[in-house]
Amino acid sequence: MKMFEQVVNGIQPLDDVSKKKAQQRLDGLVKPIGSLGRLEDIAAQLAGITGKLYNEIHKKVTIVMAADNGIYEEQVSPAPQEVTVLQTGNFFKGITGINVLSKHAGADIRVVDIGIKGQVNHPQLIQRKIRQGTSNMVKGPAMTREEAIEGIEVGIEMVEQLVNEGYELLGTGEMGIGNTSSSSAIISAFTGCSVDESVGKGAGLTEAQYAHKKGVIKQVLEINQPTPDDPLDVLAKVGGFDIAGMVGCFLGSAYYRVPIVIDGFISMAAALTAYKINPLVKGYMIPSHCSAEPGFQIAVDLLGIEPMLNLNMRLGEGSGCPLAFQLIEAAAKIICDMGTFTEGNIDDSDYVDIR
Amino acid sequence: MKMFEQVVNGIQPLDDVSKKKAQQRLDGLVKPIGSLGRLEDIAAQLAGITGKLYNEIHKKVTIVMAADNGIYEEQVSPAPQEVTVLQTGNFFKGITGINVLSKHAGADIRVVDIGIKGQVNHPQLIQRKIRQGTSNMVKGPAMTREEAIEGIEVGIEMVEQLVNEGYELLGTGEMGIGNTSSSSAIISAFTGCSVDESVGKGAGLTEAQYAHKKGVIKQVLEINQPTPDDPLDVLAKVGGFDIAGMVGCFLGSAYYRVPIVIDGFISMAAALTAYKINPLVKGYMIPSHCSAEPGFQIAVDLLGIEPMLNLNMRLGEGSGCPLAFQLIEAAAKIICDMGTFTEGNIDDSDYVDIR
Repeated sequence: MKMFEQVVNGIQPLDDVSKKKAQQRLDGLVKPIGSLGRLEDIAAQLAGITGKLYNEIHKKVTIVMAADNGIYEEQVSPAPQEVTVLQTGNFFKGITGINVLSKHAGADIRVVDIGIKGQVNHPQLIQRKIRQGTSNMVKGPAMTREEAIEGIEVGIEMVEQLVNEGYELLGTGEMGIGNTSSSSAIISAFTGCSVDESVGKGAGLTEAQYAHKKGVIKQVLEINQPTPDDPLDVLAKVGGFDIAGMVGCFLGSAYYRVPIVIDGFISMAAALTAYKINPLVKGYMIPSHCSAEPGFQIAVDLLGIEPMLNLNMRLGEGSGCPLAFQLIEAAAKIICDMGTFTEGNIDDSDYVDIR
Repeated sequence: MKMFEQVVNGIQPLDDVSKKKAQQRLDGLVKPIGSLGRLEDIAAQLAGITGKLYNEIHKKVTIVMAADNGIYEEQVSPAPQEVTVLQTGNFFKGITGINVLSKHAGADIRVVDIGIKGQVNHPQLIQRKIRQGTSNMVKGPAMTREEAIEGIEVGIEMVEQLVNEGYELLGTGEMGIGNTSSSSAIISAFTGCSVDESVGKGAGLTEAQYAHKKGVIKQVLEINQPTPDDPLDVLAKVGGFDIAGMVGCFLGSAYYRVPIVIDGFISMAAALTAYKINPLVKGYMIPSHCSAEPGFQIAVDLLGIEPMLNLNMRLGEGSGCPLAFQLIEAAAKIICDMGTFTEGNIDDSDYVDIR
């Protein structure tokens, strides 16, 4: 609890002076002003985060929070629950989507057991299990308020450790059968949108399963009555351990001033929760791809951010992060490596008005 | 002309057997079916293009076609015409957007003078100048039909040469002040859309300049009366040498069966022209990013393709290509490097129906 409060209260806004200097440098590069769009925004954002004009990104990593969800009992998922255990093991075989995409991007992954139902034994698995999965939230809160804070602190500690190891760019991912249900419930709880708007078909549901899932999430919200103005209450009552861990990653990244990438729907629900805890975290976040889940867009609109990738992906695992890493590195390189109008022998005053 | 006809008539459809095999392999990988979205589509498309299930991409390159446009006289651009010459020189200094983004992606560039007004001397500049810029198309055709074919053949020859050098992934870019005007005119000519729909603010125009530009393009279309059913007529009358070269790149890529990336607005106008010449080229094209130009979306809808990146970029130079290259490589690696359900110890039949 002490760590949680220290971090939440210690988050500072972006360094506007550095951000402005970066924008000036970008405007002087040999291209029409603003023509590299979002890449320029990110280059300026990085300067605001680190306080440095030139940011070189050498080490990047996606943190995968793995946990199970008690709501699984209500048959809201098309996949068997043991997939959480099995796929967590697969992360160490190097055969999953996040493995292959991370390797491609020259990025690492760290997998945390923050609440898997069952036991995964691997020397590289970070053992921070809070409990063997959350409680079934259709019957009451998914977790206690203390457990929610504990989960957040796991995320904060992960960020602290990774920053100490020299990582300069982080990503958030998850593995947990049933976690789209929590994400939908969180988004409905915060925004007041109906479950018709926040619930999607997850990794693949039939129409009948979809209708059933919506009914279950509606019940979850009715029974728990999460308080939208109290983000910890929302997280504890209708969240998951994986989401709590990711909330901690977002808060920790803002505290330690390191950019952090939002993956898909579940990661976005965590980002929204972190934003509700302290809106300053938004400055440190970089969205990656558009999730196909309908609730995703609601959170995006509320946060006022714009994903860079439109790939119709819905895998989770943090799989959008390594793809975004490459774009963020490209953004960083623009400001480091492009030449100025002067170096390009172009008089930029000619651009102003030719008529 | 002989080369043009040989290539246009020699283009074959994608290899459906290989594409289907790739789709089967993708469906058996350790993830929910289709959950890697567009990356899976691209992996299957690559198989259809090359006839190989596993595609490793080692060498990739963006071809930058540089040319001037006679329409510049009508003051349709906010940049001075000599920027074409200057920026073409800058490509060899390594300081431009396409340089920096290509280096980041481990990709090369090739710059072709296909019609620059003026002389750029650099040993690496490929000298294929057709003429010192097109004619002012507000007074008559931009070029002759023979010149349009000559331009296309330059593009075809570039692809042939690059394929012989071992390049496995190509991109299309351009440098030419005034070329958004040609692109808008082409899109209006093919689709019948009004200039209000096809003309944008290019690299940066005031409202007054924008209104003027629309008036000029309207005149261009009235005076030239391009025939929508005759793509060479459209290209010759309202196109540019850079666009003709890129049309040749698209046709050549389909002929030599190598994937080719569409960049932004101008590249998309060339892609549409190539598609009108032979619709089979579409199977070989991969769109990269959404241009901010309004006519872009009209062409995208007509082609029925979906860009992967939403970066609000409007630089040109082929700058979207290296960013797309990294995504395409990621797509190729999924099918090569991910494990199957069996390797992941997951019984995929469990996924089918759990209720």
